[in-house]
Amino acid sequence: MKKSLLFGLLGALALNATAAPTVKIRLPERFRLLSDQRFDLRVEATTLADTNATVQIVINGVDVTASLPAPEITFNNDANAADPDVAWTYRSYSFPNGGVYSAVANVTDASGTGSTTSRIGVQKFSQTGLAKKNYILYIGDAMGTAYRDSGRIVAKSVNNGFREGFYDDWQEMDKMPYTGMVMTYASDNITPDSANTATAWATGNKTINGTLNVFVDNTDSKAAGASSGSANKIYALDNPRVETLWEYLKRLYGYKAGIVTTADVCDATPAGEGGHTLFRSLLKDIAKQYVDGIPGFTSGPEFDVILGGGMENFNQRSVANSGDTRNLPNELVGLGFTYVTNRTDLNALPGGASAPDKLIGLFRTGNMNVAFDKLGYTRPSDEPTNTTSGFGGFLDQPFLDEMTAKAIATLNKGGSNFILMVEGASIDKQSHPNNAAGVIWDVMEFDKAVGVGRSFGTNNPSQKNSSTLICVSADHDQSMSIIGAVDVTVANAVANTRSQSKYPRTITLYDPFIGNNAAPSNAGNNVGEVSGFPDYTMGVNGYPANTNRYQICVGFRTGNHTGSSVPITAEGPGAALFNGYFDQTDIFFKAAKVLSSSTSTIDEFQKAVSKLGIVGQNY
Amino acid sequence: MKKSLLFGLLGALALNATAAPTVKIRLPERFRLLSDQRFDLRVEATTLADTNATVQIVINGVDVTASLPAPEITFNNDANAADPDVAWTYRSYSFPNGGVYSAVANVTDASGTGSTTSRIGVQKFSQTGLAKKNYILYIGDAMGTAYRDSGRIVAKSVNNGFREGFYDDWQEMDKMPYTGMVMTYASDNITPDSANTATAWATGNKTINGTLNVFVDNTDSKAAGASSGSANKIYALDNPRVETLWEYLKRLYGYKAGIVTTADVCDATPAGEGGHTLFRSLLKDIAKQYVDGIPGFTSGPEFDVILGGGMENFNQRSVANSGDTRNLPNELVGLGFTYVTNRTDLNALPGGASAPDKLIGLFRTGNMNVAFDKLGYTRPSDEPTNTTSGFGGFLDQPFLDEMTAKAIATLNKGGSNFILMVEGASIDKQSHPNNAAGVIWDVMEFDKAVGVGRSFGTNNPSQKNSSTLICVSADHDQSMSIIGAVDVTVANAVANTRSQSKYPRTITLYDPFIGNNAAPSNAGNNVGEVSGFPDYTMGVNGYPANTNRYQICVGFRTGNHTGSSVPITAEGPGAALFNGYFDQTDIFFKAAKVLSSSTSTIDEFQKAVSKLGIVGQNY
Repeated sequence: MKKSLLFGLLGALALNATAAPTVKIRLPERFRLLSDQRFDLRVEATTLADTNATVQIVINGVDVTASLPAPEITFNNDANAADPDVAWTYRSYSFPNGGVYSAVANVTDASGTGSTTSRIGVQKFSQTGLAKKNYILYIGDAMGTAYRDSGRIVAKSVNNGFREGFYDDWQEMDKMPYTGMVMTYASDNITPDSANTATAWATGNKTINGTLNVFVDNTDSKAAGASSGSANKIYALDNPRVETLWEYLKRLYGYKAGIVTTADVCDATPAGEGGHTLFRSLLKDIAKQYVDGIPGFTSGPEFDVILGGGMENFNQRSVANSGDTRNLPNELVGLGFTYVTNRTDLNALPGGASAPDKLIGLFRTGNMNVAFDKLGYTRPSDEPTNTTSGFGGFLDQPFLDEMTAKAIATLNKGGSNFILMVEGASIDKQSHPNNAAGVIWDVMEFDKAVGVGRSFGTNNPSQKNSSTLICVSADHDQSMSIIGAVDVTVANAVANTRSQSKYPRTITLYDPFIGNNAAPSNAGNNVGEVSGFPDYTMGVNGYPANTNRYQICVGFRTGNHTGSSVPITAEGPGAALFNGYFDQTDIFFKAAKVLSSSTSTIDEFQKAVSKLGIVGQNY
Repeated sequence: MKKSLLFGLLGALALNATAAPTVKIRLPERFRLLSDQRFDLRVEATTLADTNATVQIVINGVDVTASLPAPEITFNNDANAADPDVAWTYRSYSFPNGGVYSAVANVTDASGTGSTTSRIGVQKFSQTGLAKKNYILYIGDAMGTAYRDSGRIVAKSVNNGFREGFYDDWQEMDKMPYTGMVMTYASDNITPDSANTATAWATGNKTINGTLNVFVDNTDSKAAGASSGSANKIYALDNPRVETLWEYLKRLYGYKAGIVTTADVCDATPAGEGGHTLFRSLLKDIAKQYVDGIPGFTSGPEFDVILGGGMENFNQRSVANSGDTRNLPNELVGLGFTYVTNRTDLNALPGGASAPDKLIGLFRTGNMNVAFDKLGYTRPSDEPTNTTSGFGGFLDQPFLDEMTAKAIATLNKGGSNFILMVEGASIDKQSHPNNAAGVIWDVMEFDKAVGVGRSFGTNNPSQKNSSTLICVSADHDQSMSIIGAVDVTVANAVANTRSQSKYPRTITLYDPFIGNNAAPSNAGNNVGEVSGFPDYTMGVNGYPANTNRYQICVGFRTGNHTGSSVPITAEGPGAALFNGYFDQTDIFFKAAKVLSSSTSTIDEFQKAVSKLGIVGQNY
């Protein structure tokens, strides 16, 4: 570090720096990469004497400027027209080896040289001599601690399965042997959204809220209000990019890549695997990136499997709404994809050697309907009534576990290795308006999808457990708390304490002088709150009904995301790395380490732990 | 199992069972023990023809009745005086070996024989041939996921230490290598309290809310309203008991045992290590148990170190309030204890070979004051004003880390092995009335105490890391959410969203028909909510001040406990066992397994994981 810093200072001091250019490299402070992982090195110079300024790039003390491909050079990037500025964007740069790199940018104009240095940590990635492993990442959107628990409390209390405080059985995701806690902050906010969090696990780097796999630059003010049909969207699509693990493994190692979601497939969480945009709202541009890639950066189609909602972004394109009139599903079919649009056709797809080579399934415009509604259940009175019209004409939508099974069959056809993201999207989308039934039944749908992956991991003869890493986590938390149980036969019983409602209790400000016997009051319950355990009964399709007397009682503090850490569980090779507290970006580097290492030593660990097994609850 | 079940059925069928006695063994369904761990086997017979009934105890098919010590035999136990009933309580029973035991109770009266069977899982415990290990269990009361995070966000954002979503440093408890998620349910409730949760980790078994290390019996209705000064308290103190790990290790293996808390030392969490009562409110009886033990079950003094509040339970005893006029501190001094009552005297205690042999420190009546107030900070306007009178005359109270250091010095004197529980109590007590500053500064105080234990574990030459297991967890969660950041210079800024306040936002019930572009509204913020990160500055005694502009913004949904899982972090020998989702009772069996096993094989694992280390954030 000191050496490169010295070079940077020498560069700055070489000329009179009194009015030297102001130089920025648009990378985060703790920028981290894999070897050969592509990113755009953007150098911005402002406060220039003129725009004849020149740039010099020095990597680890070596001037590499002449050997770099020509950069994109743009002028008057920022909003200040009076101040000359230049930006040089070197697209698709990468480092071939592991280690810490110093990148110095020196910009020289008539008034002098300005300089800046970025330090970049690079983790070596190579599969030479290794058996390839698959990677399935499950994301329950907003599935923080209480959300995970709520699914277990409802699903595993069926038939008195939850009594005396113990369960007869746990959720699939609870049974995974390793757990960690993931810190989810955005680069500009304690409280993240689904775009920057997806960027974290997909690229190993944080960005700002609402942004997918790019970093900010000084054209962003010109992008304000950009839509997929607007001219100014170019300023949201030109930002310095960083390659995702899905793109990387497909480009360099021949992996099949897939995304499965109950949201619009261009929504933030799935787009995190292949979208590059300042604004997550540019859905139709994201769809286009899926099909075309980004010339010179990623090559399209970016995915071998795309399953979910958002059909309109592919087949309802117009010059006004997207700038083109392409029919993307048709194009994908021309490129060897099988295209399905309903559950019946999806589930009829053959498996094994007859599985599709590539698969796109778009089952609805917008986000898909939630599990509770797909099951035909009647929503509680404080949630939207489920009517046939609520399905927008898309009455035959698959469940997430069904989509996951077909995704794996396609991606793994012929023993191909693959990377797959599966999202339970409406845990979040139903939590925003505090719809508890919508939330909790989607946790259960998500867990069934986890079960599909776990069965593949442990039961697939050709892949076996030793070759598929499975992680289950959330992108961020929301504000749900598990209050207890409620007796719904009580008149006006409240099962879902919304963020707009007060929680009824007598409060006494704690006076430490009074001491223990006058401890702070915790009196006060919503109507119908009771002790004991829920007594759900089985309903349709392996899901509990919601017609029992004692139900879970939850509360929401806001309708927004929160800044808590979220659990991660892991299983399969190298899963033991997913332990302890760590940052969300580490999911990327841990997964990459598993995929590029022999994990046999640490995989022996679970056996050693099992030998120290404690007396079980169900002896 | 089948064999013993058959024996039970044969017993029941041996006589005419038409009007046979109704028989209960007062143990939970999934009762688990260590070998030699004491419990009371209570057999209750009701619907008797008369009270001349006799009992037969059959263990694994063998009639052991004649070989058992005489039971306590009591009549008319339940509230139904017209129905003859008898109970036989075999005190301090245990099983010598590991395995699954079947305990059959047959009760015979003139009308026949009634029978019941309990199955009991027993985990073998032995330290033969092993180096002894210490065990420190840290409990942040109510320190669920968001609470742990809040301490980090405030403490580690000082001096711009939290920027671009990364920290320069983490909390002590965040740095521990292993994490698990703990399910905390009571045996009668999704939402637990601190008594039954302490029973879980202290004895390996759940009980009902409010109850410490005993199970319910049929005299409980007579105990209603019992206080430490009442006659009916005998019905709350006679319940079937189960031995705690603190009592067990002291009795059988010569461990020193300690409890340290910022609460009353007779409050539920510390009392979990040595109290046995249906009602946690019997504080003065708990204090008496600490000193005397329970004849025939535990021998007193139960602890070698007791530090915290609750002075009045020891030195303000009267016949009216407790049934005796003893001065318990004086008695303990007579038994070799050193007694201190303020911070100055505590911190003046010598260490090393001159440390006290045994130590009781009572620094306040009731619960001790919280960190925020001990630091002399000014509370936000919506929290109680901190005044000198709020300290009740106890102006010289130690911090939790200071108490922890002295506890370890005493317990470990001369290299003694020990078991210690350290509680950060007011994380919970301040969360009940939604006092955010009170909560968060107590998380920081707690983390400093964790640091003391970690330094001992890794730095003590005679003990070293390899001999001290350290776990950090919570008993249960509460409802706090991390909303984000708030600019307190905004007029009427809201940093602490209480459970009695609505959260301001425009809500749109989610209509899936409208789809993605009309996603559920997440608009609406409290006054002053902003993006970005807090900017705390350092205040007094290594704690942040609370005078900065950008502060953490939290919300509470209720003033009560919630039913979420809580994180656990672990370090030291065998810490790798504390991984995955598990029940809170497993903390007991995992810790016991570590203390009774060679953990060298699994301890090697951490080294193997380190070899696969990823590129760090602070390269």
